[in-house]
Amino acid sequence: MAQKWETIAAEKRAAILRNIPVEFLVPARLLPPPSQADVTTFPRESGWFTERELDITESTATRLLQKLASRTWTSEDVTRAFCKRAAAAHQLTNCLSEIFFTEAIKTAQSLDEHLRKTGKLRGPFHGLPISLKDNFNIVGKDSTVGFTSLVNEPATYNATLVELLEAAGAIRYCKTNVPTAMMIAESVNNVYGRTVNPRNRNLTSGGSSGGESALIVFGGSPLGVGTDIGGSLRIPAACTGIFTLRPSFGRFTTQRCRSGLAGQEAVMSVNGPMAKTLEDIVLFSKTVVGAQPWLVDPKCLPIPWRTVQLKKKLKIAVLWNDGIVVPTPPVTRALRETVEKLQTAGHEIIEWDPRLHPHAVDILGRLFVADGGKSVRALLEPTDEPFRPEMASYAEATELGTYDMWKLHIERSELQRQYLEQWMSHGELDAILAPTTPFATVENGGFKHVGYTGVYNIVDYATVSFPSGVVADKDKDQSLSEHTPLSQTCKEIHQEYNAELVHGMPVNLQLVAKRLEEEKVLAMTEVVLQATNPSSFTDRLMASIKSNL
Amino acid sequence: MAQKWETIAAEKRAAILRNIPVEFLVPARLLPPPSQADVTTFPRESGWFTERELDITESTATRLLQKLASRTWTSEDVTRAFCKRAAAAHQLTNCLSEIFFTEAIKTAQSLDEHLRKTGKLRGPFHGLPISLKDNFNIVGKDSTVGFTSLVNEPATYNATLVELLEAAGAIRYCKTNVPTAMMIAESVNNVYGRTVNPRNRNLTSGGSSGGESALIVFGGSPLGVGTDIGGSLRIPAACTGIFTLRPSFGRFTTQRCRSGLAGQEAVMSVNGPMAKTLEDIVLFSKTVVGAQPWLVDPKCLPIPWRTVQLKKKLKIAVLWNDGIVVPTPPVTRALRETVEKLQTAGHEIIEWDPRLHPHAVDILGRLFVADGGKSVRALLEPTDEPFRPEMASYAEATELGTYDMWKLHIERSELQRQYLEQWMSHGELDAILAPTTPFATVENGGFKHVGYTGVYNIVDYATVSFPSGVVADKDKDQSLSEHTPLSQTCKEIHQEYNAELVHGMPVNLQLVAKRLEEEKVLAMTEVVLQATNPSSFTDRLMASIKSNL
Repeated sequence: MAQKWETIAAEKRAAILRNIPVEFLVPARLLPPPSQADVTTFPRESGWFTERELDITESTATRLLQKLASRTWTSEDVTRAFCKRAAAAHQLTNCLSEIFFTEAIKTAQSLDEHLRKTGKLRGPFHGLPISLKDNFNIVGKDSTVGFTSLVNEPATYNATLVELLEAAGAIRYCKTNVPTAMMIAESVNNVYGRTVNPRNRNLTSGGSSGGESALIVFGGSPLGVGTDIGGSLRIPAACTGIFTLRPSFGRFTTQRCRSGLAGQEAVMSVNGPMAKTLEDIVLFSKTVVGAQPWLVDPKCLPIPWRTVQLKKKLKIAVLWNDGIVVPTPPVTRALRETVEKLQTAGHEIIEWDPRLHPHAVDILGRLFVADGGKSVRALLEPTDEPFRPEMASYAEATELGTYDMWKLHIERSELQRQYLEQWMSHGELDAILAPTTPFATVENGGFKHVGYTGVYNIVDYATVSFPSGVVADKDKDQSLSEHTPLSQTCKEIHQEYNAELVHGMPVNLQLVAKRLEEEKVLAMTEVVLQATNPSSFTDRLMASIKSNL
Repeated sequence: MAQKWETIAAEKRAAILRNIPVEFLVPARLLPPPSQADVTTFPRESGWFTERELDITESTATRLLQKLASRTWTSEDVTRAFCKRAAAAHQLTNCLSEIFFTEAIKTAQSLDEHLRKTGKLRGPFHGLPISLKDNFNIVGKDSTVGFTSLVNEPATYNATLVELLEAAGAIRYCKTNVPTAMMIAESVNNVYGRTVNPRNRNLTSGGSSGGESALIVFGGSPLGVGTDIGGSLRIPAACTGIFTLRPSFGRFTTQRCRSGLAGQEAVMSVNGPMAKTLEDIVLFSKTVVGAQPWLVDPKCLPIPWRTVQLKKKLKIAVLWNDGIVVPTPPVTRALRETVEKLQTAGHEIIEWDPRLHPHAVDILGRLFVADGGKSVRALLEPTDEPFRPEMASYAEATELGTYDMWKLHIERSELQRQYLEQWMSHGELDAILAPTTPFATVENGGFKHVGYTGVYNIVDYATVSFPSGVVADKDKDQSLSEHTPLSQTCKEIHQEYNAELVHGMPVNLQLVAKRLEEEKVLAMTEVVLQATNPSSFTDRLMASIKSNL
């Protein structure tokens, strides 16, 4: 007989599907077989989408806003197209946690009407669908963050960012899947099950914002918002080859979101945009900060969006490995090729000594389970839901008393001080170039080691995860022949590395600036893209010019 | 037989006195009798100071810097004068915890030499003595924060602010007394004993930065730095009638200072300047932020000092009482007279509803003892030092587990959200005008209720404590005849109120701006001073013009 939690989960999954209007359900005859790994080809190859729908859903957010502002496209057209494609994404990758397409279309219609009547845009996001990670509270919708006990417990207030986006004219139409408590690096939980990577369904789309990354890379959303406390924006962006910004805490509002570890503050969760282009990341960031969130969220900093003037030649430190895990071959090659191109472009490259990384990663792990797993357990118990195996560390943890927690704060603060001291010891260092994860991506269930991202949560630095332009290649990326593992995790990762399986997957890297240097890290990412992929840069420039025509 | 801790304390007190060069020891024949309450008259009336020493030590920091820059006075002259007056302050009020006058004079000589040789100032504080609260670590000096177990445990590194001030050319010459763990609102501990108020030695100089306030009001320091986690800058400023700014966390660096509750972060301690004039508070603030402390302290925010443009007519909400304690009559009169003058000057006055204050104060109290008093106990036990009676709440507290601490974080964050919401509900509200404490000042040992200050630690707002110009007057400030106490504390405060005793004491008020509005709250304080005390404002202006001549 099914357990209580299993019944709840099954009903919730069915309810989500019922929320897809019939017109947006992929006809059974068109559904690719489960054995088909890459489903990103589906929208074009299935014939189910009109050319216009494809044009809309393959546009960047920036282009969409231009088309909406010029009234070339109505918000209703745009919203319908994304709802349809998001519905397909869900059916093929299980990426959504809440669906409210019907309401979204109504909102779109009212925005169209507003524009028609007044000639004015509602705001800088007028008519643009923006997808949201499951933990953004929306009145009347669940935010289960993967717990069956939170099913059918709709939010009674909106997250502050949800209100900000609404005031800016954005359309909300769906929420996206996460792992339990958003504390696993893949997106799997006991309510919705697992989200898979649209580029290869045998591989993970990452986590915890892996519903977002799957949805975006499939084309079901032009722009989404995820969160990050240990890599939860950057890992899924890396697993799918898209862009994200992990801002320092205080730039974008996290107020009134559901937290996986509610009240935990020793390392702060942040949220940030995920999109297929850097331009869209910048657009989101500028707009959200421009809305002065500090007037409604006391934790937001009154720092307006700043213009930055970069030096012509950047000084970038490379992190080849973090002293715990040597990246798998595609990632090391991506680093190497990127470094070579940056040097060719005249930038100065030095090495970053990872001496502080193992301690930082150790602290992060201890902070997450400092409550002895009580927060997670309290959400599992009401429905007798079991701990997922990935959450074993929470099940086994011992709670710290406040006195020991204060000691841990001291340890973390000292690490932060040392990390900045190391940075400043290099003179005018602009950035660190680092792996995002040890992988391009990895088989479902195989993700290990969030150390490359987690260290920047501990020090709260502004970090971009971006596709390096390098793609995993089974011929170029053979296993390391003479590999001395740095740790047990390192050993396992290299034993499990499968060049065949990840062949063709994009490789992301991280570009890291100091705390609260969001504007600078975005500007530097643009410089890195110019240096590493000049032709694609020209393409993007041309596309941008064309879209402005 | 004396206990171990008593012996340590007695030796430490003797050692401090031995550190005063003989030339700076007040001759026994000149010492005022213990019965003399007001010792601020001593420097002028004793005849022990030269006119030049009096001129120097009665100058503002701003004027001193001008005289130093113009080479009218040498740093050695200035430093010697302040060392001498600080020595007297200590002998009369027990305000110092560390004395290093001899080193200070050497530093001053080397700065004089530097200026002579290069024609250049070392930095914006060239040659200026600045006193520091006991918890600022200085290599080779104790930072006992009132614990005998920390005596003869000299610091092995400098606090970041100490290094910043040194780089700016400031002279360090002494540290000032605090209460045990800096967690009592008067400055009393088992090492150094009690600091008293130079204006009336039967009254407290407040705490925890009450060594600073006593030193400054006596004229033994032109500018000092204290800290504040529940009112520890604002209360001593109020008890002695001087100025201070409690900045929001992140503007001034607190890195590498000794904390009373090390690692406690749910409400952050901050530090700020204390001085006799607002001008000097602004000078310090601008200079410290101008030194870009975020390049060395990762907790500092990269927000440069900003210019503010105030509205001609401010909108100010008055907090008549906080719903817990009705202020004693001099404070209520100060509020009333200030409000009347602000209205006359055309500013808009509304009332601030204290509905959130009791909850905020309750949260603050719980945060302080969340470790079950373990941090304090760990510092008492090595020397069998007893808990002081003022610290009973720490002795009796039960430690929270991390899970319950996280819940308390949530409660505090929601209170912060509500406080901002209430602020924004008033439209373009600029400031809150509030009591700093229920008192002008109060008899030694009689301080109760840190709620008026503590609420702004919980919400982390930028707050100035300033002398209102109103002075307690036994004729005007009779006990409230029909007083319905708001609480047991309220009842006790009004029963103990003694109009006779506080007669003549200045009354401070608080001006409160939102989080990280340091520049604005300082500018608004200037406006309030103009409105409430225009003649004194003109005096100050003239003095400033003269000092520039």
